[in-house]
Amino acid sequence: MNIAMIGGGSIGLLFGYYLSEVHNVNFYVRTHEQAEKIMNSGLFLQKGKKMEHIQAKANALPEWSGDEDLTIVAVKQYHLPEVVNLLKSNAPEYSGSFLFLQNGMGHLKWINQLKADNVYVGSVEHGAYRTDANIVRQTGLGRTKLALFKGSSLSAAMEMAKPLTQFPFSFEDDYYEMLLNKLVVNSVVNPLTAILRIPNGELLANPFYHSFMKDYFSEISACLDLKNKEKSFANVEEVCKKTAENRSSMLKDIEENRQTEIDAILGFVLEKAKENKKDAPLTAGFYQLIKGKEYKGGEE
Amino acid sequence: MNIAMIGGGSIGLLFGYYLSEVHNVNFYVRTHEQAEKIMNSGLFLQKGKKMEHIQAKANALPEWSGDEDLTIVAVKQYHLPEVVNLLKSNAPEYSGSFLFLQNGMGHLKWINQLKADNVYVGSVEHGAYRTDANIVRQTGLGRTKLALFKGSSLSAAMEMAKPLTQFPFSFEDDYYEMLLNKLVVNSVVNPLTAILRIPNGELLANPFYHSFMKDYFSEISACLDLKNKEKSFANVEEVCKKTAENRSSMLKDIEENRQTEIDAILGFVLEKAKENKKDAPLTAGFYQLIKGKEYKGGEE
Repeated sequence: MNIAMIGGGSIGLLFGYYLSEVHNVNFYVRTHEQAEKIMNSGLFLQKGKKMEHIQAKANALPEWSGDEDLTIVAVKQYHLPEVVNLLKSNAPEYSGSFLFLQNGMGHLKWINQLKADNVYVGSVEHGAYRTDANIVRQTGLGRTKLALFKGSSLSAAMEMAKPLTQFPFSFEDDYYEMLLNKLVVNSVVNPLTAILRIPNGELLANPFYHSFMKDYFSEISACLDLKNKEKSFANVEEVCKKTAENRSSMLKDIEENRQTEIDAILGFVLEKAKENKKDAPLTAGFYQLIKGKEYKGGEE
Repeated sequence: MNIAMIGGGSIGLLFGYYLSEVHNVNFYVRTHEQAEKIMNSGLFLQKGKKMEHIQAKANALPEWSGDEDLTIVAVKQYHLPEVVNLLKSNAPEYSGSFLFLQNGMGHLKWINQLKADNVYVGSVEHGAYRTDANIVRQTGLGRTKLALFKGSSLSAAMEMAKPLTQFPFSFEDDYYEMLLNKLVVNSVVNPLTAILRIPNGELLANPFYHSFMKDYFSEISACLDLKNKEKSFANVEEVCKKTAENRSSMLKDIEENRQTEIDAILGFVLEKAKENKKDAPLTAGFYQLIKGKEYKGGEE
């Protein structure tokens, strides 16, 4: 299968590496430097102390023209508007399928504009960290949930996923619920751990943080009008437990002076709060505090 | 004038030092070790690069029996219940005056139990840091506001203050308003700077923090039923400006794994919120987060 991978960040490199083992993958990345590095030196995947290597093909982003059967978009949500414009302009009617791997749900309104055979969305539960332009470290093996967002068939997604026995995928019926579950986890865990500068497990281990997390979850679940609040909170706790030692992606972004995904995450919750006419003082507060940390560039 | 100074922390040593220059001061401190160190080596006051020295007398706390004309109590609010019990038991009817220098307002209910000629309260605007059991570093020269809490005469407080030309005092008519103004500043600045780990000035310089501070102040001012909200917020901003480079006492407490004064500060605001039937999600939230930081002992 011919696959285009748009995005050379940690998730793009991780997926691209595994897919390259069984498919024909073309990377499309932001800078010429990164494309050249991938072309000349290939890709490296680090798992614990082991380093694996594979050859790969890479182009600059504007060269994408919809020639592949499947196009995976693995850029951050805040780069998506620009990428979607490029996709629309380079292939107004794409006779292939798209898969979008962004966090949050704010991106749905943009990808809804695309014309393609099928549009899939995914929820990624892997841990990965890019250590160089062509090196990705896998920090946790999870799985990727996929669902149909627009179109009629899961076949392209299945064709991509099936041969990848070491890199698990699962298929979900309801894309909205799938993304919502991830959004709730990200909304609670990411801002809290980033402001408090704690690994995820502290939210359970520290009784005061746990008590605050309950109040904060309760506000978020009201904003999003969650149907099964108990189950959803249990899921947040389960993720904290499974990833107890991890520092969340937002905490890492803050520590390393990068832009966070706060707009994709709490920005979406605040939009829903407005729609549903709910008060959201804690959510609005954490949104401001993370924006403040971004403004500061993480300095102390 | 004979003065008892109860408490050998930064404020006790700072006041005790200046008072010793013109009055006869007896320290009453928690540990025998500290009492001996003060007795044997005297007190040191560090101002910039200059170090000053003075002889001083010190006793263990239980030896206080109400012999001095004025007794100044400069222990943290969370040690006050224990100290008040000792005062009541060692001198049930004290024929002198008390001066209490605690932050917050939670202590008023305890000191209200004391029988004495006069009871004063003070609001301290000095910066001080204890670097050893008998060494205090003055980090900012402010002033101390004093007011009558119970009794009929300011004379003992005036007799204490008047000769101290290098260490300014002022007298206020309304103890409640005086303490309330300080409480509002402490409620806003201390928890925010301690959680965000920023110097006070960042609350003005960072537009996102400033925006959050407004919302948070607005909640606190409703809980406390403040009469002049604009003036009160302007005062908070003024303090942030004047102390822009300072790290708040609560931030230092968190960084150095000490107990904070959160109960004296936000604990009181939350009591008032309950009395006034006001929602206080942000105040309750920051209360929990600071308690969580205390529980963690400031580790990251």
